[in-house]
Amino acid sequence: MASPEIDRLIAQLAKLPGLGPRSSRRVALHLLKRRAVALDPLIAALTQAADRVRPCGVCGNLDTADPCALCGDSRRDERMICVVEDVADLWALERGAAYRGRYHVLGGVLSALDGTGPEDLQIAALVERARAGAVEEVILATSATVDGQTTAHYITDRLADCNVVITHLAHGVPMGGELEYLDDGTLAAALKARRPL
Amino acid sequence: MASPEIDRLIAQLAKLPGLGPRSSRRVALHLLKRRAVALDPLIAALTQAADRVRPCGVCGNLDTADPCALCGDSRRDERMICVVEDVADLWALERGAAYRGRYHVLGGVLSALDGTGPEDLQIAALVERARAGAVEEVILATSATVDGQTTAHYITDRLADCNVVITHLAHGVPMGGELEYLDDGTLAAALKARRPL
Repeated sequence: MASPEIDRLIAQLAKLPGLGPRSSRRVALHLLKRRAVALDPLIAALTQAADRVRPCGVCGNLDTADPCALCGDSRRDERMICVVEDVADLWALERGAAYRGRYHVLGGVLSALDGTGPEDLQIAALVERARAGAVEEVILATSATVDGQTTAHYITDRLADCNVVITHLAHGVPMGGELEYLDDGTLAAALKARRPL
Repeated sequence: MASPEIDRLIAQLAKLPGLGPRSSRRVALHLLKRRAVALDPLIAALTQAADRVRPCGVCGNLDTADPCALCGDSRRDERMICVVEDVADLWALERGAAYRGRYHVLGGVLSALDGTGPEDLQIAALVERARAGAVEEVILATSATVDGQTTAHYITDRLADCNVVITHLAHGVPMGGELEYLDDGTLAAALKARRPL
């Protein structure tokens, strides 16, 4: 209906997570009608990110520096490595600002269904880091899903002969969460891991 | 938390309609992790659109050609002009494929609240087109909102001395719509405009 350039733009936008055909038409029109304040700055931001941002060779975080700002920060505790599935999880932990150690991004989880095996993830690199020098604790912060837990168990096995303590995030009642709406699994885990007040 | 380039990209994405801070983080990460299949093609599509797409000098449609493909299509009936608020409305009508005349994009509606007056819309250009030569009918396809109807009435006044028939879209029950869930205004309009079977 519109020109091929507009159709191609809408098709590219529709591939983004959370955007469908209707919302990508809306976004395309928004951009085309606001060239100076929306379209040009977006192109500039995308181009800069494409030119400069790349995965950190040590931990897998996305940054302009390699090693990334977190790996290069000597104030962060190099005795701890927090293992996450994805950069999004690393960002979530950093927003929380409760962790001041290093990270390791796996790039996914083991999944028989999706055909993701250990060689598809950054597990060998993790074992190498855990073996080398300073690391004393590896915190497994994979998701509390079947695949996430399978991955955590597999990594625990692989790290067996590295001289490190392996921990995982606590399960329990989310802060602000109401018991009434909590699933049985979480409630059982919270009860089992109860602590003196 | 992340590098300034990533933060800037997230901030730009968050300005798009329908994207909030959380979904724009998700989109940014999706793009950065899939450079070849997502980020580069999106930059190319945006750049091409920015370079080539502009408003049609006749009707206000967005296209690479000026006059646009619709204004330049001699098979379309130049005796009819359909007046729409926005390019999105034009696209919606073209998807329907029920209209084969010309268009005129106003670029908004009159709105006392937003301070949009007649000089902010393409109304003078419409009057000029309606006066010149071939036009016999002007179809007012503004929204069935207070502002849309006010705009339609204003345009009707402005076109009074142009020798054209002025029509508006019918109001009534949407196809597939259930009476039970229809608002009173639409029901009343549908009843008033009832037609022999």
